[in-house]
Amino acid sequence: MKDLAQFSEIIEKEIVNFTYPKSPDLLYDPIRYIMGLPGKRIRPLLLLMSYQIFDEDVKRAISPAIAIEHFHNFTLLHDDIMDNAPLRRGSPTVHKKWNSNIAILSGDVMMIQAYQLLSEVDSNILKEVLDIFSKTAIQVCEGQQWDMDFEMQENVNLVEYMKMIEYKTAVLMAASLQIGAITAGASNKDQAHIYEFGLNMGIAFQLKDDLLDVFGNPEAFGKQVGGDIMANKKTFLYLKALQLADDIAKKQLQDYYTSEDSEGKISAVKGIFKSFDIEKHTLDMMKAYYTKAIKHLDAIDSDNKAPLIGFSEKLMSRIS
Amino acid sequence: MKDLAQFSEIIEKEIVNFTYPKSPDLLYDPIRYIMGLPGKRIRPLLLLMSYQIFDEDVKRAISPAIAIEHFHNFTLLHDDIMDNAPLRRGSPTVHKKWNSNIAILSGDVMMIQAYQLLSEVDSNILKEVLDIFSKTAIQVCEGQQWDMDFEMQENVNLVEYMKMIEYKTAVLMAASLQIGAITAGASNKDQAHIYEFGLNMGIAFQLKDDLLDVFGNPEAFGKQVGGDIMANKKTFLYLKALQLADDIAKKQLQDYYTSEDSEGKISAVKGIFKSFDIEKHTLDMMKAYYTKAIKHLDAIDSDNKAPLIGFSEKLMSRIS
Repeated sequence: MKDLAQFSEIIEKEIVNFTYPKSPDLLYDPIRYIMGLPGKRIRPLLLLMSYQIFDEDVKRAISPAIAIEHFHNFTLLHDDIMDNAPLRRGSPTVHKKWNSNIAILSGDVMMIQAYQLLSEVDSNILKEVLDIFSKTAIQVCEGQQWDMDFEMQENVNLVEYMKMIEYKTAVLMAASLQIGAITAGASNKDQAHIYEFGLNMGIAFQLKDDLLDVFGNPEAFGKQVGGDIMANKKTFLYLKALQLADDIAKKQLQDYYTSEDSEGKISAVKGIFKSFDIEKHTLDMMKAYYTKAIKHLDAIDSDNKAPLIGFSEKLMSRIS
Repeated sequence: MKDLAQFSEIIEKEIVNFTYPKSPDLLYDPIRYIMGLPGKRIRPLLLLMSYQIFDEDVKRAISPAIAIEHFHNFTLLHDDIMDNAPLRRGSPTVHKKWNSNIAILSGDVMMIQAYQLLSEVDSNILKEVLDIFSKTAIQVCEGQQWDMDFEMQENVNLVEYMKMIEYKTAVLMAASLQIGAITAGASNKDQAHIYEFGLNMGIAFQLKDDLLDVFGNPEAFGKQVGGDIMANKKTFLYLKALQLADDIAKKQLQDYYTSEDSEGKISAVKGIFKSFDIEKHTLDMMKAYYTKAIKHLDAIDSDNKAPLIGFSEKLMSRIS
């Protein structure tokens, strides 16, 4: 049975050794660049660990794992254009380092490469793998669209928000796990459990992300703490605070999120969050999803679940 | 045996009846919009006509035909952003009507939908269809990158230009035909012939496009005649003229293509083209490719080639 370190090594080695055509350089250099930035490789790790639950010889899962990492990086290239993000993993984004056109086209190629890599699975499971992958890929785009819609939308409710993070973040984790399971020949029932595990864990993961953005340790976080507040991002914390706040605090919060940036905005909003115990509410919600996730993992009968459980716990307790 | 009109009707009906999810509207409205603009539907028509050469019951070819049309329209959405094009098929482009972010994301969804539709082919040919499709899709992106590179590049030679149009335009026509043939169960040899037919016909088609842009009838053309000249686009006509021109005309041409727009630029450049018989040179080149194309079609033994031949001739003699 392989552990996290061994799986990480396999993935890094595959990514380093993956060869892209030499030309046109302006198409492939950005792909080499984004794939080479230090990432957590969460999705390919999930895929390999899921595979191992059902079968030990993980070789067959490597192509789909690298496929998913290409797809994920395609979403980063395009999302960073849409969000006008200057930094990714501490380095300039592709559209800043090159330009938007380059980021669009390199992203397009990465998505096609994801399909090329996926097509290397055994032909008897190809259709099944493609169906879950394409369905998920569309959900990820829908999630991104909702995320952009919410920026313009005055009222967003928590249910809509939860659906958005489910689509934008959780479904790809869930699909990675399911594709690992399909590749290993898991039963439909086990596939459904591992998918639900990933879906709930992914939602918990995103809630943690929202939390870290406000309450994270600035040194460990690597991004600007309070970035979501500065960008008036309607995260779980903000929407929960609106739900719990009295009229005065609610108006204050809404004013901060609609007026020009003001000095002390981050600490003021953080103060309102604190007065309504939003950190605890978020942690509680996160735990509820994570508990539900683990129940689905418990339902799978296998001796090889330890690496996946360990990795998930690491993701939940992460400080950056 | 079905003819062009019948195939067109099948395709239009399929496209009109294709249902996209209702929400998020900002993701799916642009897709409905671009797919609804009056297009020539060249690629799905080629696919169906190729299918019919090898098998009469074209039902099985409909999903891949609509897949290719989605892919083609995805390239239009993204290319129009990159080229900053205001109009497409006489209507505002998606990034002008909505915005670039919308055009990026809607395009992404269309590419995924192309794969979803392709995945509906019989599972015993799925891998084969995906391989040719993904390879082609990447070539199309490479062609677009070269096209953009050439704008910045001082010297482009004709060989590079021919490779670029092969990738940007011809390979997708060739692949459409091959996928039709695969779906109909054609032999590898016939698949290769139909692919080569499409490749050479596609190059001839693009040369015609270059020609129409300069020498087309303004009323029939629908676009601004001389648009390529105004945009300093290094087309076959320009590169051939550079090759044939004496030093004085060459310098004139290069000056027109590097200096600010000047009044009378279109007619002056057209004049240089005329003095070196560029229209005839382009037509000769076009005919050479088309003749080569037809030889490959001749090599296929079938009684059902007439609709494809008729359609190709129509494409070659088109005036817009």
